[in-house]
Amino acid sequence: MPRLLLVRHGQSQWNLENRFTGWTDVDLSPLGEDEARQAGRLLQTGGYSFDVAFTSVLKRAVRTLWLIMERMDLYWVEQHAHWRLNERHYGALQGLNKQETTQRHGAEQVRLWRRSFDAPPPSLDGLDPRHPRFDRRYRGVETALLPGGESLKDTLGRVLPYWTRAIEPRLRMGQDVVVAAHGNSLRALVKHLDHVSDADIVNLEIPTGNPLVYRLAADLSVLDRAYLDQDRAQALP
Amino acid sequence: MPRLLLVRHGQSQWNLENRFTGWTDVDLSPLGEDEARQAGRLLQTGGYSFDVAFTSVLKRAVRTLWLIMERMDLYWVEQHAHWRLNERHYGALQGLNKQETTQRHGAEQVRLWRRSFDAPPPSLDGLDPRHPRFDRRYRGVETALLPGGESLKDTLGRVLPYWTRAIEPRLRMGQDVVVAAHGNSLRALVKHLDHVSDADIVNLEIPTGNPLVYRLAADLSVLDRAYLDQDRAQALP
Repeated sequence: MPRLLLVRHGQSQWNLENRFTGWTDVDLSPLGEDEARQAGRLLQTGGYSFDVAFTSVLKRAVRTLWLIMERMDLYWVEQHAHWRLNERHYGALQGLNKQETTQRHGAEQVRLWRRSFDAPPPSLDGLDPRHPRFDRRYRGVETALLPGGESLKDTLGRVLPYWTRAIEPRLRMGQDVVVAAHGNSLRALVKHLDHVSDADIVNLEIPTGNPLVYRLAADLSVLDRAYLDQDRAQALP
Repeated sequence: MPRLLLVRHGQSQWNLENRFTGWTDVDLSPLGEDEARQAGRLLQTGGYSFDVAFTSVLKRAVRTLWLIMERMDLYWVEQHAHWRLNERHYGALQGLNKQETTQRHGAEQVRLWRRSFDAPPPSLDGLDPRHPRFDRRYRGVETALLPGGESLKDTLGRVLPYWTRAIEPRLRMGQDVVVAAHGNSLRALVKHLDHVSDADIVNLEIPTGNPLVYRLAADLSVLDRAYLDQDRAQALP
């Protein structure tokens, strides 16, 4: 039975500063590094391993994966970094302090941007130098696919094709898979696997650095799933 | 014009202890980590970058690559770790101290094992627990391909198919490529690119942590090549 190990990266420098991050390539904070090592320790202590690793093209996720691979002595495992596993793109809000944004736009508007399923944030202009079309890591991607801002629904929509195309086939081969990614790209996978409704998925908070382990049947239906650190986990949907 | 960047990993724990290493998965020493960062700094200062990275499945090479990617802020670049880029397999000599081996087998025999082109070391028995067939990282590899000991000639023979199949096509696409690997797997590439004779290749010593940069023509013939740190470089063949 294949296992799917989901790990949300730990604290980044901008989490610490309470700023909207999205696709901004902010590094882990020292606490975030510790959370990644802790995830590796939990996986190793639990006797887990993996045959292939997936992550985003954002360094806070890649470094989380590397710290896990380091802790588990799995340097040699095949790894894939893909933009479709990136965090939700927060559009023109990226870089803004959440407190200031609330003062400027009102608590209700900010709550809507952060917690509704299909409300996108104000989009980055296509000429804004922060738009992903100007970032060389997305050079191989069709421009029309690159977001200037996403609702959670948009994020799920671009994560799932990668799940189907790249991750599912490995699980069907019986391989164990780790995905080191972000709050919202991991929500996409949990929503898909556990058939969570649009209304409920916005309330799911996956804790950082606490591996969520799925045991899957041959048809990839969920046999069971659990956080490795039960003391730091909200009930699953 | 595509560029090929070759980096030999820095000092490992067993270099420090003067032991035969081969496929033993020994970590970098603190000096080796510094050498890797230095290689990244030289590449960055020289204005180099890369579109895809290749390394072995041994952590001293993988970590060298990661330290370079970290220094150059290229976490997101596609990377491939493959056993065919491993160091020469040193057979039953692996783990032995070079000094002791000389006392036991004589200086002439050790010189022959280390410096002849086609003399293999005593091979590991197929039932020896150190044989790669028992290591899960080689599980997907046909057993007959896994060496229990290699001459330099054997090493070159198993590196080249990977060069042809995996690395050359990327250069033909015009991509810049980094290979972070080992003294002997890199010798294979230099021998191939520069048409070095069997007699001469044994004398080539690629310095550690000093990127060797090839500029290639469209047909992958060599336009020029140079070490980035000219002060720490032997003449090239």
